[in-house]
This record gives sequence, C-alpha cells and structure tokens, in this order.
Amino acid sequence: MSGNTFGTLFTVTNFGESHGPAIGCVIDGCPPGMALSEADIQHDLDRRRPGTSRHVTQRNEPDAVEILSGVYQGKTTGTPIALLIRNQDQRSKDYGDIAERFRPGHADYTYFHKYGIRDPRGGGRSSARLTAPTVAAGAVAKKWLAAQFGIQLRACMTQLGELPIPFEDWAHVPNNPFFAPVADVQRYEDYMDALRKAHDSCGARIRVQATGVPVGWGEPLFDKLDADIAYAMMGLNAVKGVEIGAGFDSVAQRGTVHGDSLTPGGFRTNHAGGVLGGISTGQDIEVSIAIKPTSSILSPRESIDIHGQSAEVVTKGRHDPCVGIRAAPIAEALLALVLIDHALRHRAQCGDVVPPVAPIPAAL
Amino acid sequence: MSGNTFGTLFTVTNFGESHGPAIGCVIDGCPPGMALSEADIQHDLDRRRPGTSRHVTQRNEPDAVEILSGVYQGKTTGTPIALLIRNQDQRSKDYGDIAERFRPGHADYTYFHKYGIRDPRGGGRSSARLTAPTVAAGAVAKKWLAAQFGIQLRACMTQLGELPIPFEDWAHVPNNPFFAPVADVQRYEDYMDALRKAHDSCGARIRVQATGVPVGWGEPLFDKLDADIAYAMMGLNAVKGVEIGAGFDSVAQRGTVHGDSLTPGGFRTNHAGGVLGGISTGQDIEVSIAIKPTSSILSPRESIDIHGQSAEVVTKGRHDPCVGIRAAPIAEALLALVLIDHALRHRAQCGDVVPPVAPIPAAL
Amino acid sequence: MSGNTFGTLFTVTNFGESHGPAIGCVIDGCPPGMALSEADIQHDLDRRRPGTSRHVTQRNEPDAVEILSGVYQGKTTGTPIALLIRNQDQRSKDYGDIAERFRPGHADYTYFHKYGIRDPRGGGRSSARLTAPTVAAGAVAKKWLAAQFGIQLRACMTQLGELPIPFEDWAHVPNNPFFAPVADVQRYEDYMDALRKAHDSCGARIRVQATGVPVGWGEPLFDKLDADIAYAMMGLNAVKGVEIGAGFDSVAQRGTVHGDSLTPGGFRTNHAGGVLGGISTGQDIEVSIAIKPTSSILSPRESIDIHGQSAEVVTKGRHDPCVGIRAAPIAEALLALVLIDHALRHRAQCGDVVPPVAPIPAAL
Amino acid sequence: MSGNTFGTLFTVTNFGESHGPAIGCVIDGCPPGMALSEADIQHDLDRRRPGTSRHVTQRNEPDAVEILSGVYQGKTTGTPIALLIRNQDQRSKDYGDIAERFRPGHADYTYFHKYGIRDPRGGGRSSARLTAPTVAAGAVAKKWLAAQFGIQLRACMTQLGELPIPFEDWAHVPNNPFFAPVADVQRYEDYMDALRKAHDSCGARIRVQATGVPVGWGEPLFDKLDADIAYAMMGLNAVKGVEIGAGFDSVAQRGTVHGDSLTPGGFRTNHAGGVLGGISTGQDIEVSIAIKPTSSILSPRESIDIHGQSAEVVTKGRHDPCVGIRAAPIAEALLALVLIDHALRHRAQCGDVVPPVAPIPAAL
Repeated sequence: MSGNTFGTLFTVTNFGESHGPAIGCVIDGCPPGMALSEADIQHDLDRRRPGTSRHVTQRNEPDAVEILSGVYQGKTTGTPIALLIRNQDQRSKDYGDIAERFRPGHADYTYFHKYGIRDPRGGGRSSARLTAPTVAAGAVAKKWLAAQFGIQLRACMTQLGELPIPFEDWAHVPNNPFFAPVADVQRYEDYMDALRKAHDSCGARIRVQATGVPVGWGEPLFDKLDADIAYAMMGLNAVKGVEIGAGFDSVAQRGTVHGDSLTPGGFRTNHAGGVLGGISTGQDIEVSIAIKPTSSILSPRESIDIHGQSAEVVTKGRHDPCVGIRAAPIAEALLALVLIDHALRHRAQCGDVVPPVAPIPAAL
Repeated sequence: MSGNTFGTLFTVTNFGESHGPAIGCVIDGCPPGMALSEADIQHDLDRRRPGTSRHVTQRNEPDAVEILSGVYQGKTTGTPIALLIRNQDQRSKDYGDIAERFRPGHADYTYFHKYGIRDPRGGGRSSARLTAPTVAAGAVAKKWLAAQFGIQLRACMTQLGELPIPFEDWAHVPNNPFFAPVADVQRYEDYMDALRKAHDSCGARIRVQATGVPVGWGEPLFDKLDADIAYAMMGLNAVKGVEIGAGFDSVAQRGTVHGDSLTPGGFRTNHAGGVLGGISTGQDIEVSIAIKPTSSILSPRESIDIHGQSAEVVTKGRHDPCVGIRAAPIAEALLALVLIDHALRHRAQCGDVVPPVAPIPAAL
Repeated sequence: MSGNTFGTLFTVTNFGESHGPAIGCVIDGCPPGMALSEADIQHDLDRRRPGTSRHVTQRNEPDAVEILSGVYQGKTTGTPIALLIRNQDQRSKDYGDIAERFRPGHADYTYFHKYGIRDPRGGGRSSARLTAPTVAAGAVAKKWLAAQFGIQLRACMTQLGELPIPFEDWAHVPNNPFFAPVADVQRYEDYMDALRKAHDSCGARIRVQATGVPVGWGEPLFDKLDADIAYAMMGLNAVKGVEIGAGFDSVAQRGTVHGDSLTPGGFRTNHAGGVLGGISTGQDIEVSIAIKPTSSILSPRESIDIHGQSAEVVTKGRHDPCVGIRAAPIAEALLALVLIDHALRHRAQCGDVVPPVAPIPAAL
Repeated sequence: MSGNTFGTLFTVTNFGESHGPAIGCVIDGCPPGMALSEADIQHDLDRRRPGTSRHVTQRNEPDAVEILSGVYQGKTTGTPIALLIRNQDQRSKDYGDIAERFRPGHADYTYFHKYGIRDPRGGGRSSARLTAPTVAAGAVAKKWLAAQFGIQLRACMTQLGELPIPFEDWAHVPNNPFFAPVADVQRYEDYMDALRKAHDSCGARIRVQATGVPVGWGEPLFDKLDADIAYAMMGLNAVKGVEIGAGFDSVAQRGTVHGDSLTPGGFRTNHAGGVLGGISTGQDIEVSIAIKPTSSILSPRESIDIHGQSAEVVTKGRHDPCVGIRAAPIAEALLALVLIDHALRHRAQCGDVVPPVAPIPAAL
C-alpha cells in the first residue's frame, strides 16, 4: 500500500536505494515449473546497465543478479523469487553538495517534505537505479509470456530531444546506444555530444510494442489493460505522457477513420493500439511514452536549501544526460509485468471460457 | 481483482449495466463525521447527465441518486456508503441490430471473446453510462478534499476534433455545453452540427486541474501520484492518451528549461504539473487527456458478426457524437478519487511527520 | 481496506445498516457463463432468516433479494453482481433506550470511540443482520463450487450452551430449528425456553464441513487455506474461537497419533481437518467455531452512558437469545467464499500444473 | 496474492527456503523517522533461534540479520526495509530420504500436488525456519508500537502436551527454555526428555497478550481485529486452533456472565479478550493458540512415495520435538504485525476523530 509493490497476481516488491548496500525485488506469484537461471535475467539487466556508452552515466555497476529463493534444480517452484543486486560503485562524496539543496525538477524537495527525512546519496530511493530490479523481474515475466503465448516485447526510441527518429527497422535497435530503429545514428551521437558540452539534458520519446497478446486480457471497469499500462509507464522515472495506439492524434480523427474495421481475415488498422474497452483485441499492443530531460545537470540552477533559503544548485556526479536512452528495456519490462499480471487474472476468472468462435487474426 | 474497484483506502466498487435495472457503487473508507446528503452528489451527476444539449445523447435519465447506507443523521459514519441510481430510459430494442455484430472501435468484440457472453444492450458494462457512479463517488471525495484542504477541482475542453480551444477563463466553462473556457462557442456548435449531419463523430482533449493539493502526496516506487492519475484517466472510456504537466512537449525541452526553479517565494514555473518523483509538489496538478471519437456512429462500417462472418454495421440508437463533451465532470471526479486515496495513504504512513521547514508557495 | 470487502479474486463488498433503507453486497470476480437467478440465492437466505421459530428474533424480514447487475439472460456475465435486500421491519423506537448507553459485550462502545459517531438503531453496522448479504454471496459461490468440483458444504450445531449435541446424522439438520444433527431436539427446546424466561442468553458451537475440495488449494506463507478460514469465521459476529481438524485437542496428541497416515487407497484419519501446510489435502475440510452468548439481553446490566457516567442497561427490542442458532448457514457461506477465492487463486498461478501422479482418495 | 505478503498498510513480504542461500523479508509502509538498527531486531531473532536448548532442533544458525535498505543514518526513511538472513547450516544430505516420500502430517504431499514440484530440503518453503523473517519484521513493529502507544507484547506456554502449565508470573518466562510462566520447569524437562527417547513429538498451547492497545482499532465488517489475529495465528506453522478472550469457554457462558460490565473506572472483566465487534476495547488483547505435534519424527510411519506407492517414512535430520517451544516470540511478532497494520489503518480513516469523551480504563 506504500507503493513499492507492482501487480496484483504476479507481484514485484522492490527495495533499495541508489547508494545503499543492495537493491532488489521479490517476485510473488510466478507459475511453477518454468526453467529459470540468473542468465535469463542478466541479459536484460545488461541492456539497461550504466556505462555502456559515453552517452549514459559512467557509474560502473556490473548489476550482477543473485537468485535467493523460489528456484529449485533450475525450475521455479511457485514460491517467491527474491533477486538481489549488490551496489558496487557508490561514490557518495559526489553528492555531498546536494544533500542540503533541492535540484529543480527532482524528487529531492517532495521526499523531504513527505517523509521529513531523505537519503540524498545518488537520489536515494528516487534514483532511476531502482529500475534495475524492475528489469530483472520483467525478464522473468517475458520468459513466461514467450513460452506460454509466444508474446514478444520490444521498444525503441522515436524522438531524441527535438529530433524525431524515423522508423526504419526493429533490427537496428540493438546495434546502437540509443535503441534507435535506424541504421545511421551519427546525427544523434553529435546531438548528445553537443548537449553534454552545454551541460544540459534532453528528453526522449519511446515506443513499446507487444506482439502475440491474445484477445481478452484486461479488466473492466477500472483495471483496464490500457489503464494499467498507463499506470506502469507514468510510474517510470521522468515519464510525463503516455499514449495507446493513436494517442493524442485520435482527438482530431473522425469516428469513421479511427474505428479499426474488422474482417474475417483480420483487422484493417490498429488505431486502438491493441486495446478496446480496456481489453486486448489480439492486435499488437502499441504504447508511446514521453520522457522529460534529466534534472541533474551541471548548469547552475536557481533553487532553495533545506532551510528554505535561496541557493544555487550545480549537480556534479555521474548522470545520464538523457535518461530516455536507457528507457527502452525498462519500458519493455513494465509492459511485460502488466501483461503477465493480466494473463493470470484472465486465467483466474475466465480460465474455462471457450470463445464461441475463433478470434480473427491481428492484421490483414 | 476483477477490476471494478477503484482506490486502495478510499475504495469505490462500481456495478451495473447500461440497460440493467440499476447502476451504482459502494464507497468504503470515507472518513466519519462529514455532512453528506444526496444533494451534495446530485450537482455533479447533473453536469454529466445525458440530454442536456443537442450535442449529446438524447437518452432521458434523471440520474437521481439514493444513499442506501453509511450516513446517519446527515453525517457519514465511516461505514460503506452505497449509492444507487435506477435506470429509467432503456430502449433495448434500439440495440437489437448490434447484438450480433461488432462495432469497429467498440468493446463488443473484446467482451465477447473474454467472457464468451456479453450484455449487448446499450454497450452493457462497457457503456459510458457507468461513469455516473464514478461521478457520484467523486462528489463525496471532492467535498472532503475541499473541507479538509481547500482543494478545488475543475476541468475544461481544450480541443474539439481538429479545433483547438484557446483558454480564456475558467468562468466560461459552466456557461456552454462544451465545458469550453471561452465566451463564444458558436464555432463549436456549428462544428458539432455538421458532424451529426455527416453521421460521424470526433474526439476531444480535456484539461483537468486540482489546486490546493499539499506537498507530499504520492507513493514511491510504483503508486506514484502521477501513475495513479494516468491509471485513472486512461481507464476512462475512450481515453487514448494522458499527460502530466508539460507532457509530450517535455521531450523537446532542455533540462535547463524544464526543471521548475524553486525560490523562497514559490516555484517559478510548473512544467512538472505538480508532481516530482511521483509526489505532489504543492503546485497545481495539471493533467491533459485525449479522447477518441465515439465508435457508435450512423455511418455504415465494415465488420464481422458473432459467427465470424463479414457484416456491415450501422449503429442506430442514441449516442454522443463526441463523448468528450461530457468528460469534464468525470475527469474531475477521477482526479478527486485519486487525491483522496493518496490523502489517506499519506495520513496512514506519515501522519505524524512534521516537515522541518514550511513548504514554499505553489507559485511566485 | 476499510474492511468491508471479503476475498481477493472473488470479492464481496458488503454495505448497509440494520435499520437503514437497504443492505446488500457487490460480488466481483464471479466466473462468466454460470446460470444464476434470485431463486438460487433465496434458499440460503430463508435458512438464515429471522422469525422462523420462537427461538430466534421475531423481526419480520422477508429478506427478498434482487439481482441488480451481472446477470444477462439468466447467466453470469463476469461483471459485478449487485445484490439488494430492502429492510422492511425496522422498529427504531425499540432502540431509543440504547442510543445513549453501551451494552456490555456489544460493539456499541467500540464503534462510538472509533468513529466518534454511530448508528445505534438495531446495532447499526455491527448487527448480525449484515450476515444476510454474506449468505447471499455464499449461495453464488456454493453453486459454482458444486458445478465445477462437486463440492458440498454443510454445518450443524454441536453444542448449545452447556449442552453438547451428539452427532447422529446430517439428515436431521434441516428438520429442527437448531441445525442439530439429532432426531430429538426436545431437550434443546426446553433449554431455550428456560433461557428466555430467565432473560438470559447462551453460546453455541458449530461444525462446518466441506467435502470434495481437491488437493492443492491454499497459499503459503500467509494466505493459507486454514488461515483464511480462521479469518472468515472469527470475523463472524460473536465468534470467539476457531478450530481446524483436531483443533485444541491436538495439543495433547502425540505426533505418532496426530499425523494422518497416507496409503494408496486414501488417508487413514483426518486430524488435519483437510489442510496441511496451509494447503488442502483432498480430505474433508473440518472447522469448528465457538459463538458467545448474545449481548443484547433483557436482564439489567451495569454499564456507562455516552457521557461516561454509570448507567444500567436493559436491552428491549427483538433479539436472538442464542445467535448461534442461525449461524450454520452463515458459516457455510463463509467457508464457500474462502474456497471459491482459493479455487480462483489456484487457477491463476497453477492453472496448468499437471500433478505427476493422481492424488489419493480422501479416505480409506 | 500468492500469499507471501502479510498486512495491508504495514506489509511484510517473506521469501526463502529452509536450505536455500538466504531467507528474508521486505517491510513496506514503516513510518519514517524511527531509530532502527540490526540490534533492535536481533534480540527477538535470538529468542526464536534454534539450538538454544536440548529441547529444540540442534541446527546451528546464528540468524544474523542485515538491513539492506530503508534506513539512513540510523533512522527509517519511509521506504522499504529489506532484511536478509543468510542460511548457514544446511545439511541437505539429511533429507535425501524424504525427497521421495511424504511425511504424514506434513506439507510434503500438498506442495507436491499443488505445484507439481517442491524443494524437499528441510521442508523447503513450508519449514518453520521461515518464521525468522516474521520475527524480524515483528521486532520493527513492536518498536513502533511501544514508542507511539506504549504497547507491550508477550507470550508464554500454557500447556505442553498433556501437561497444563499454571500461570505464576510473566517474570519467569525468559528464565526457562519453554517460555513457561512458572519458576520450576523440571517437570517439563523430564517430559521432553522422555518424548525424545520415545522418538515422538507433542503439541503445545501458547498465550499471547498485548497491553496498551487503545480503543478503536479494527475494521468492520470483515477485517475485524480478531479476524486478522485469527488469520495471523492460524497461518503460523502447526497451529490448529485460535481463541480470543474466553474462546471456546464462552459457548457455555450465559450472556449475563460473559458481557464485560463497563464502569466509569474501567471494565470489570475481560471475557472479550480486548475486542468487541471486531474493534479493540482498550483492554488487554488476549489470544490463545493450539499447536499440533511436530510431524517430522524418528518413529516409522505408514505413508506413500511420490509415485503413489506404499512407503514407510522415518524422518531423520534435526527437528524440534515440540515446535510450540519456540512459538512464543513468533506469536508475539504476528500479533505486533496485526496491531501496527490496524494502527495505520485507523489513522488513515479516523485520523482526525476526536472521541466525544475519554475512554474508560482497561480495568478496574
């Protein structure tokens, strides 16, 4: 209830601080009998890991995960899976400066007033480092979704600061540090280099997609599939907007255009983004999120200190100039966690429903 | 867990179908001792009610609410408040046509495949009519928020189809059928008249705002205030996008611009939309949502029937050509429900926290 | 979270006060496609109903239930089932006397101090009348458990005040007003008549049993099947003790005796009461509960008033001299609600588990 | 939802297996600002620890706890507190024998059929070893309850097998290995020595008490304080019965006797055990639980193997001949967890209720 557990049937309870001894999570509700090892999880952790290019924070964290429970002889047992990641490269001295000052655009101020106390080292609990356990849990969810339903998740960057990134091919995504679906990223390299020199930061837009989701997942009236996706994505650090399918463009669309036609051979379009009435249609789930620019920047900012007095803030230390760059694997993980939760919820209530006729294909 | 309960501490369990005998909800967790009568609730229900202009559905529903429990001698007792609204004007014959065909863009198809059975009368459970109990519960929440914290909620339309609506003044909102913050709405009247004649529908964009929210509401890591707002708004029928503060514009903003400066006299800007790190800052909560065009339209559409065969669909009956027109009071109610829930959650965990220094004002 | 919802996947949200306009509940999570009508529910409501013999309260309530939602053409649709029971025979004048005084052994005092306000009419929210919606919801659960698994639930009285009731046969239970498993109940009739004349009340002990529960229901570590049964039963008005299987007798048993032997043909004994490690064994679930004597009695009692001053209390009005007499159908309903919830939880997580070998029979 | 999280506002998510690398828990919802160190927790862990006398298992576990998060500069920050206990003395070879056979009275059989897979080493997830993290979390709860309300918790053994243990004084409890409230425990030492020689085991009865609980904690209708206590206690390994106050004795009591009289100077008796209508009265909370004999014994037992064939089982390895002996600190911890949860729930809904008059004292 204090907001550190994600999900209802497949739950992930996250703990840790950026510069504490360890971070991690406890997964409860994982179906038994699935093969699982650290290697299944490490791959996605490595995609999210800091220090992999000059465009992200240079903090050196191997992010090696240890499975503490819930797996016996290489298989899940149905009991809680505890995942532990020890923090290695905490340089808390870097943060002495901001222990007494609030960074504009940062959670410093709100944590301080909510709790009357905060761990300022590296952002403490509000650090994006806490997305690592989410990625780890998402890897477990992904494996199950793929094995049971053939569901695949992927994400890419579609805008970097002012620069839209055209979609060329998913195949390019793993080949550049931006998760950009284009062959040539020189333009974005240059943009980021200039930004760092300017001691500034920028935002990004990320597209997330799930293919293979069957029709029928999602709950009316409130825990709609798209509502839970919006909750998951807006809860990711720095996200300020979420769209499903046509998103904000649907405002200007006519009903004759927006509604996706159904044919025996499949849907003609996917403006819905794979969700109608809060329930999956069987089409691809399409999500887009807006990530704001990093608030921890080297440029001096006007602010106040913890005594309420005016104070200039300059954030040294190691920070991502665009947190959106590492957001793709995290967004995939969050979507996976939403999907597995609804898969289990569907099975609970409608496990024995035999649809009167077969669903139509995802697309013509 | 089947998604018909909203909230965690102030919970609203919704029930009913568009053309069943009644709709309603049960509120659990309302603090005791607050004066409450049907009149407190009816005002907002009347703002959402159908039939109030030619631009909305002509279904004639008084939407008169009855309090069945939880109030004694005019005051809440702390026990569940059950609210009942009898359906009056069900013309189920209007819907005979679509009982066997799926409307493109509608929940028909997904409900049918999820449950293997669906109530097709008026959209059944997926009808926007089910937002009435939400509005009723929101009215209770609003009253408490106003009494305890002076919090005010309001919403207005900022775009109708292709037409952006400039912001002139909140005072205009109650004076036109569009909840538009402008003095002259002739342009929007004409637009809607043309749309109806074209047997088509359009979307809308709605802005929702809460003032007076104190600093410190919202939970890390997952039940962030903005995450819960996104969940609430995306769960509203036809919503396809949600923004907090600068929203998608923040992608192209630089960090030096986006981060709201703090001064002893208040914040300089509010790009954050009143939320940092998932916790309220004390500034206005600013939300924007995208509503898609109504899927029930008179124009013939390509679709299939429940046997999987090709079928043309024409939706007769009474429908809103722009569901966004009545969305403002619903969006307010949803925001109120999110806020009261977090108010109580804050009180539970941090009820005795005395912030070391007073928060700064909402704005300079 | 305010405690008026029972269950996690099959949830029952209860509302109402003894002398308010109505009581009822909303069931969420009922699987779709099950035939359901008011008649399915009314039978159990009639078993619990007041006024059926001279040994229970003479309040005249038909307890006629109305299904407001969630059923279409005689079948559950998977959406919330709202059940409404209008109160008919409220004689609030009977209670004028106790509006300002606290009955010893009653919830008057605790409600008053918890909420600062209470509805004193007929016990308000704390009245045993609020078990009627539970019985109604339990009837829905029972129907599903019987249809899906052949599970049967039954309960009987095993002690009335000082009088133990020997077990003769389940067949006798419906033939006497005590739910006693004996042919001749004259002794208990006489006992109750004497008690009423003495203006006193007594307790009772109830046995509840479920047959046909498959092996594997119940969650470690906390939501064990027996833990949830204990929660359900102890939450029933006036219950002060709960036992599973051998219960308190197991304290004096040796391990060589208590542990139920397994054979390929079935279990030899059932000291466990059908639960091991919190998970059902496939044997009968056996529960026993202790119900205290009614606190509302005609004999004068020493107490205080709402101003904290000494006051004598005599409870007029219509009360059950032994609330345990009507407890059997309620206890069955609660056990049914626990079981259906765990049935769905099991299906969610372990829905595709194929046990390596067939379970052994319930008993040799 | 898979049952490894305890509580609603102060939640404890437990993980681990008896012979896995580690056990532990994550506490979420702890109020911020409370001084907390490992030493605060270790004391209760040491009371529960194995190997402290010849009457308990000889497994050698230091049970040293590490705080991984949620504490900064010696104070709780309001974020999750992760507690880790590494397993040290796993001798899995001891359990080779029972990997393929089900111990009568043990969870072996039910886990196997529920999940289709189980970790048999030392009972895996069903081991009483998993109560260690509960005790650790309970220590955090106890500290807060003592600091905020002066609440004290204690427990003692009141029956060992067939031997009732008379209550002499709480002061004796820490001075003997049985948590017995008597000065001379020779009789119980002899009893246990004989039992071990007989290769058998026995049950125990434990009394748990909380003093200083204010009036008003507990939720109607379902999450009553006593219901949640029953849930907590019945969920403890080997518990088969729970009583509140007079418990099963209340069946034979008359209403004129059972109902505790109120006077301006305090309650005259406490048959209610500190709970009326599911809400605390301000009197001592009094609970009694029945613990069955250990199922892992050296005497040969009739059973079956995992292929469904007849098999004799002899449980070697290190086991408690009476698990009840170490139950006292665990029962205290569980009661503390229930109380802190209801303390926070009360604060959430009724945080600003000012009772019209002061409550009466706990006792005359």
